[in-house]
Amino acid sequence: MNADYGVPTELAGPLQQRRALYQPRLPPCLQGATVRVEYDDATTTIDPTGAHAVAQAFPRTYGQRLVTFLSPDDTAGAVKAVNERQPIRVGVVFSGRQSPGGHNVVWGLHDALKVYNPQSILYGFIGGTEGLFANKTLEITNDVLASYKNQGGFDLLGRSIDQIRSSKQVSAAMTTCQDLNLDGLVIVGGVTSNSDAAQLAETLVQKNCKTKVVGVPVSLNGDLKNQFVETTVGFDTVCKVNSQLISNVCLDAISAGKYYYFVRLMGRKASHVALECALQSHPNMLIMGEEVALSKLTLMEVINKICDGVQARAELGKHHGVLLIPEGLIESIPEMYALIQEISILHNNNVPVTEIPTQLSPWAAALFQFLPPFIRRELLLHQESDNSAQLSQIDTEQLLAHLVEAEMIKRTKEGRYKGKKFSSVCHFFGYQARGSLPSNFDCDYAYVLGHISLHMIAAGLTGYMATVANLKDPVHKWRCAAAPLTAMMSVRRHLRGPGAIPIGKPAIHPSPIDLKGKAYELLREKASSFLLDDFYRTPGGIQFEGPGSDAKPITLTIEDQDYMGDIEMLKLYLDKVMSNR
Amino acid sequence: MNADYGVPTELAGPLQQRRALYQPRLPPCLQGATVRVEYDDATTTIDPTGAHAVAQAFPRTYGQRLVTFLSPDDTAGAVKAVNERQPIRVGVVFSGRQSPGGHNVVWGLHDALKVYNPQSILYGFIGGTEGLFANKTLEITNDVLASYKNQGGFDLLGRSIDQIRSSKQVSAAMTTCQDLNLDGLVIVGGVTSNSDAAQLAETLVQKNCKTKVVGVPVSLNGDLKNQFVETTVGFDTVCKVNSQLISNVCLDAISAGKYYYFVRLMGRKASHVALECALQSHPNMLIMGEEVALSKLTLMEVINKICDGVQARAELGKHHGVLLIPEGLIESIPEMYALIQEISILHNNNVPVTEIPTQLSPWAAALFQFLPPFIRRELLLHQESDNSAQLSQIDTEQLLAHLVEAEMIKRTKEGRYKGKKFSSVCHFFGYQARGSLPSNFDCDYAYVLGHISLHMIAAGLTGYMATVANLKDPVHKWRCAAAPLTAMMSVRRHLRGPGAIPIGKPAIHPSPIDLKGKAYELLREKASSFLLDDFYRTPGGIQFEGPGSDAKPITLTIEDQDYMGDIEMLKLYLDKVMSNR
Repeated sequence: MNADYGVPTELAGPLQQRRALYQPRLPPCLQGATVRVEYDDATTTIDPTGAHAVAQAFPRTYGQRLVTFLSPDDTAGAVKAVNERQPIRVGVVFSGRQSPGGHNVVWGLHDALKVYNPQSILYGFIGGTEGLFANKTLEITNDVLASYKNQGGFDLLGRSIDQIRSSKQVSAAMTTCQDLNLDGLVIVGGVTSNSDAAQLAETLVQKNCKTKVVGVPVSLNGDLKNQFVETTVGFDTVCKVNSQLISNVCLDAISAGKYYYFVRLMGRKASHVALECALQSHPNMLIMGEEVALSKLTLMEVINKICDGVQARAELGKHHGVLLIPEGLIESIPEMYALIQEISILHNNNVPVTEIPTQLSPWAAALFQFLPPFIRRELLLHQESDNSAQLSQIDTEQLLAHLVEAEMIKRTKEGRYKGKKFSSVCHFFGYQARGSLPSNFDCDYAYVLGHISLHMIAAGLTGYMATVANLKDPVHKWRCAAAPLTAMMSVRRHLRGPGAIPIGKPAIHPSPIDLKGKAYELLREKASSFLLDDFYRTPGGIQFEGPGSDAKPITLTIEDQDYMGDIEMLKLYLDKVMSNR
Repeated sequence: MNADYGVPTELAGPLQQRRALYQPRLPPCLQGATVRVEYDDATTTIDPTGAHAVAQAFPRTYGQRLVTFLSPDDTAGAVKAVNERQPIRVGVVFSGRQSPGGHNVVWGLHDALKVYNPQSILYGFIGGTEGLFANKTLEITNDVLASYKNQGGFDLLGRSIDQIRSSKQVSAAMTTCQDLNLDGLVIVGGVTSNSDAAQLAETLVQKNCKTKVVGVPVSLNGDLKNQFVETTVGFDTVCKVNSQLISNVCLDAISAGKYYYFVRLMGRKASHVALECALQSHPNMLIMGEEVALSKLTLMEVINKICDGVQARAELGKHHGVLLIPEGLIESIPEMYALIQEISILHNNNVPVTEIPTQLSPWAAALFQFLPPFIRRELLLHQESDNSAQLSQIDTEQLLAHLVEAEMIKRTKEGRYKGKKFSSVCHFFGYQARGSLPSNFDCDYAYVLGHISLHMIAAGLTGYMATVANLKDPVHKWRCAAAPLTAMMSVRRHLRGPGAIPIGKPAIHPSPIDLKGKAYELLREKASSFLLDDFYRTPGGIQFEGPGSDAKPITLTIEDQDYMGDIEMLKLYLDKVMSNR
């Protein structure tokens, strides 16, 4: 570690110092000074009925071909190619929520760029998208990187408003690209940031700006997942840290034998983090948003389902338990979703917060008044960059615990429940995981994606995402590729008002859990044992050396790699749940 | 791991299975079949002015000699001794909050007992002290232990009301000891449980019950610390897990640059966990109860101190930060303490909760009304086994965040603060750490204490605690000993009413941070850098193999081993803060 930038070496912890020395692995095609670029089929989009809309919205970047990066056939030619190269100028920006591994994308990009031509320059934008708009840069060098290699956080560059969307923002980004004479701009982020990246790429092509725009899938949510993208950088680490904590809580629960722990997990709309954590730690219940949405369970049906579980456990003499609640669950409960939608529309119409409750429809107003005051307040909070409610600010776990307690008291009074008094402890796990030291898998994956980004820019690709296939195999079998961002897009159907189905703006949407997939199938098989047996699994914390240090997400290793090819599930979910605005 | 008890092997995680194979280390004196018992000086107590009261309360167990366990001089004699041994019958009970390493005490005790005489029997009481009173036992065998070796939680036996205090409880415990014909009873717990152990030992001697009572210092709080006890089992693990999470939160804070994290930590009255975590992770501020109490800072002075820090950081352009709040802080703020005391007295007088607010003194009532409703509700909650308020139920971090925000708004209006809007995120770290897989240090320490407990019972010691000195050295230099529980006692001075100083009941009290000690000195030296520089330290998660897997608490390694010989600090603190009831 270097004392000039970041934490001085003498203040860093021993593990922190040791991690800075870890050298991420590269697949063979990235180990040389050059790659062979192979162009595959032209793409459409994963959402066939939306393809026309996507093509219309992205006339210059729609339908591009898939690209694979391979080892060069001809070493002599490759060496010649290196000598003919011009220096390249690239900018990189963190967009979206910090996720373990982000720094390694920058590092990988830097290393590939210096191998490409040592005169090349890499700029990092300071303060996320705000730094991009204002052209605030830090030149990335080996010295600057020293104390950030394999470290968590986004603190090398920071993040800010996480949007490149309004015409003012797009135009500011373009001006910066031009002022810095950038050959490429790498945008590090999740579904929202990559949708923005696609839009920016299209605009730059239209305006004859030479800068190539490349997206890198970095997101703790794991919801940027489709036939091109197997998982996102950070998902593995965040699931491991959360699973460690959930397992600790399970042992805590069974030791004291008197509390139910309601644990809400970060992960936005989809339940990928919760599913992975459940498979790693075997808690008693997981209330998955996707299941609730598809079955159209009402809030009280969800509560009754939990209470039935509590009651079944009490009959075995068990008065403790652990429930996982994905933060997106709240939006998957139909009447809560409808309420959030109404509030969202009023927000967008600039209705002052204090007046929103009075302008709700009678039905929504009645539900609003039924909810405990702390939930009412949270529902009125301002919204995130993608216009959804601030999911992380809604204490769904407290809402459920509150309502389950009321229902258990009711059942006790009616003589239907004869167990001990129900008591709960609530937790929200998220912030305490996303700053973690990244796992070896995330370190490798991010570093490889950084390399691929450089090769994409060098190949003149724009509006593409860096991708790696075969992730469940060892690194030397990883397949490095680039996929057009437009190929990952789908179109939301607005169902507001009777029969009205206008076509919305194409975007990369969060993928829900595949309810036909193997990971979900495994969970369902185990659900009854999870509920009743208390065979809690202890994954332990992330190990960086020795056995287990190369462990990958369970969901990644058991899913078929092409499972997301099944668009039906995605569409069903989009139609029922997520396109409803 | 064994499928008959606990988690079946095929369901355990790979690290969980691997940990079950870890063999804790033993110092040389415990490696043979016998030990030499050396009797040192007779003891008084760490609180000279309380010695008379302790002697009076413990006429049969006060003043016993210190005992050290050494390797036998005479191997032939040792072998002869083994052949003459009778089988021994021992019971073990978990008392107090679960703490990583508890299972290894049972394992160590079991192994030593079987070496002592293979016909010996070890009973674990199921369901903690409730199981002790009701004589509900599980015979501990190697098969039973298999899936609990080096694992977290107290779930092998469970815990319950954590008290052996009322005459009914003491009498039930004695009946069980007699019914099982126990030679020894091992009580695993912290300050409260060990105070109870002393009382039970005294009673059993007085009633001619042969069962020897032995205490083992297991507590995540680290507050059972005195000239005989360097640290407690579980403290190392809990601090490592919490430090990992705090460090994650620090990186999260600096990445986004817009939130202050208020992190409350478990640890009861004293701030040992918070101090250790601060030295491991370097957050911006630690509001230590001991400092606040000694300086007699009021609630608003604490708030102003935090606001001054926020303001100093804003002047450097920093609008994020991380603050550690020990859960005991709330009781260290004089007016809050007085309020909690009044509520506690009303509780003890069986005043119904709803009427307590109306029966407070005018001054306390005014403070009560000033507090936000969520804090008022929490202050009225029922109390813990040691009659203190339920510290873990009071959201001190939310109270402080709430008041700091109000003060920053005020300063902004008055033009004294010109930085960005203050925003906070609150966390309580505790439950998610105490079920963790124990560190190698805690595994070894607990296993050694289990062995010592057996040798204490075999030597006929009662009213003693198993102890290990030189813990900062490698295991082969550890010094195994036993210290009379009465020697660790002090006497609280009740200051209720003008001039009234009746002598209270002697007990082992939680030790506060030594404000003259080296650990605190280090923190003070670094305080200004911590506040302003953001050189956050990343300790990472617990590593079980390779470099760093033998790391010990920083506070343990830098303190002088005899620092707690300075009773003045303890007395000062007891007088000012903790004896006030």
